[in-house]
Amino acid sequence: MSRQSHPSPPFATSVAVIGVGLIGGSIAAGLKRLGFTGPVIGAGRNRARLEQAHARGLIDSIADDVATAASSADLIVVSTPVDRIVEDVRAAADACHPGTLLTDAGSVKQHICRSLENALPGGATFIGSHPLAGSEKRGFEHADAHLFEGRVCVVTPDGRTPPEALHRLKAFWRFLGMSVLEMPADEHDAALARTSHLPHVAAAALADAVPPDLYELAGTGFRDTTRIAAGSPDLWVGILLDNAESLLAALDAYAERFQDFREAVARRDAARLRQLLGVAKQNRDALGR
Amino acid sequence: MSRQSHPSPPFATSVAVIGVGLIGGSIAAGLKRLGFTGPVIGAGRNRARLEQAHARGLIDSIADDVATAASSADLIVVSTPVDRIVEDVRAAADACHPGTLLTDAGSVKQHICRSLENALPGGATFIGSHPLAGSEKRGFEHADAHLFEGRVCVVTPDGRTPPEALHRLKAFWRFLGMSVLEMPADEHDAALARTSHLPHVAAAALADAVPPDLYELAGTGFRDTTRIAAGSPDLWVGILLDNAESLLAALDAYAERFQDFREAVARRDAARLRQLLGVAKQNRDALGR
Repeated sequence: MSRQSHPSPPFATSVAVIGVGLIGGSIAAGLKRLGFTGPVIGAGRNRARLEQAHARGLIDSIADDVATAASSADLIVVSTPVDRIVEDVRAAADACHPGTLLTDAGSVKQHICRSLENALPGGATFIGSHPLAGSEKRGFEHADAHLFEGRVCVVTPDGRTPPEALHRLKAFWRFLGMSVLEMPADEHDAALARTSHLPHVAAAALADAVPPDLYELAGTGFRDTTRIAAGSPDLWVGILLDNAESLLAALDAYAERFQDFREAVARRDAARLRQLLGVAKQNRDALGR
Repeated sequence: MSRQSHPSPPFATSVAVIGVGLIGGSIAAGLKRLGFTGPVIGAGRNRARLEQAHARGLIDSIADDVATAASSADLIVVSTPVDRIVEDVRAAADACHPGTLLTDAGSVKQHICRSLENALPGGATFIGSHPLAGSEKRGFEHADAHLFEGRVCVVTPDGRTPPEALHRLKAFWRFLGMSVLEMPADEHDAALARTSHLPHVAAAALADAVPPDLYELAGTGFRDTTRIAAGSPDLWVGILLDNAESLLAALDAYAERFQDFREAVARRDAARLRQLLGVAKQNRDALGR
């Protein structure tokens, strides 16, 4: 893991965003806000939605398909759902010019990166990215030009990644205000299983276990703890199953902890409960607000 | 369960707050802000802290002990930790004048209400209250004159509660901006086990299961989901153990749901996972922001 965070020279003259949703739309909005002068081209499966995003000024033009978008840009960001990224990157790579840099914004990296290594036509480079920013919202209507500011982006180069391409990719995310961490894809997935995918399951199970007829008696604690359960089930099925192996390990580690709490309550063991709550508070305090 | 929310005529000429922390301090601050003209008297175990609260203008005077405070007020609010409420109410009741109304602000009600029924000297009435407001913060420094505004307060009268006392109690919480729900103490505890105590355990177990060395990779989801784990371990040991029986049922219901998610992931069962996440989203959407 290494962190660097200085701004960098140009990373692209034109950017294609494949999938103009919350993340893709926020990338486009951020590029505009920060003075990126090249065109931002949007592509996606729903023409009507793209036209709305265009009307809002998020993207400069609409490409008819991924190939058309890819052939007009030297940086391509695939921000479609996790289970569509590999095919979209392949479609873009087939159509792009040599020297084009491709990346994604998927929350899981190992499967995507493995599927794409050695699989791209000559001249194009794919490096995985995961900008750690988002919300339970979906769609470009919630795009935010500041979404990435001050957040971390993980990039997952491997031994064959050309240094120049990696340099450009890092410059791109830094341009959007992010700190960039380099990390092997498998290490990323194991960590995110704990910091993101496990919390999603914990929050969703909580929202499932507490029925709405009790919500009159729910305070801010329940609201905070379950907020991410409002995320898109389709998106999250893709993420959770794509990282199933690491996720299962994280779920089991959590279940074990939860069981520790249960046993302390069942035994009315105040000292043990105070200890478990104490570690939790210490950890959470370390995270800050 | 019944809800009423109209403002009401005077509920007290002077209020004693036993325990001037986040809740007690916010009650005092709210009374001032809303133009309560009678004195607000503070009592508690730490004289130096009370003097600071007095210097801040939260309370008008400091009583040397609970008995002194109780003898100077016609409404006494005991806002000490759950495991001290019964003894503080008893101490206050022993010293107060006939007609004095006593209440508390504890998160668990059954044990407190049972311990106090038939146990008070003639002329004083205790009715349990639980204002559903707070934060993971502690201490009067975080007192907020608006803390209760728009929130729900549960009150737990029983068959012997004098209607006039209940009327005054409801007027008091409404004066602070709350909607008041009447509910039997056991029903309150069963509901709060799910909406509040279970989420606390789930959040704390999560903070325990994800070590700080991964926090660089934690996003807003993890922050939200674990926020309440920063609450005071001492306060929460008291709450959780005072409601152990209902809590265990809630923990088990949650563990079962969590296990459903785990099995769906283990079987890579996208349809089942989508269904579980769909119910969670539907419930969470029903709660609103």
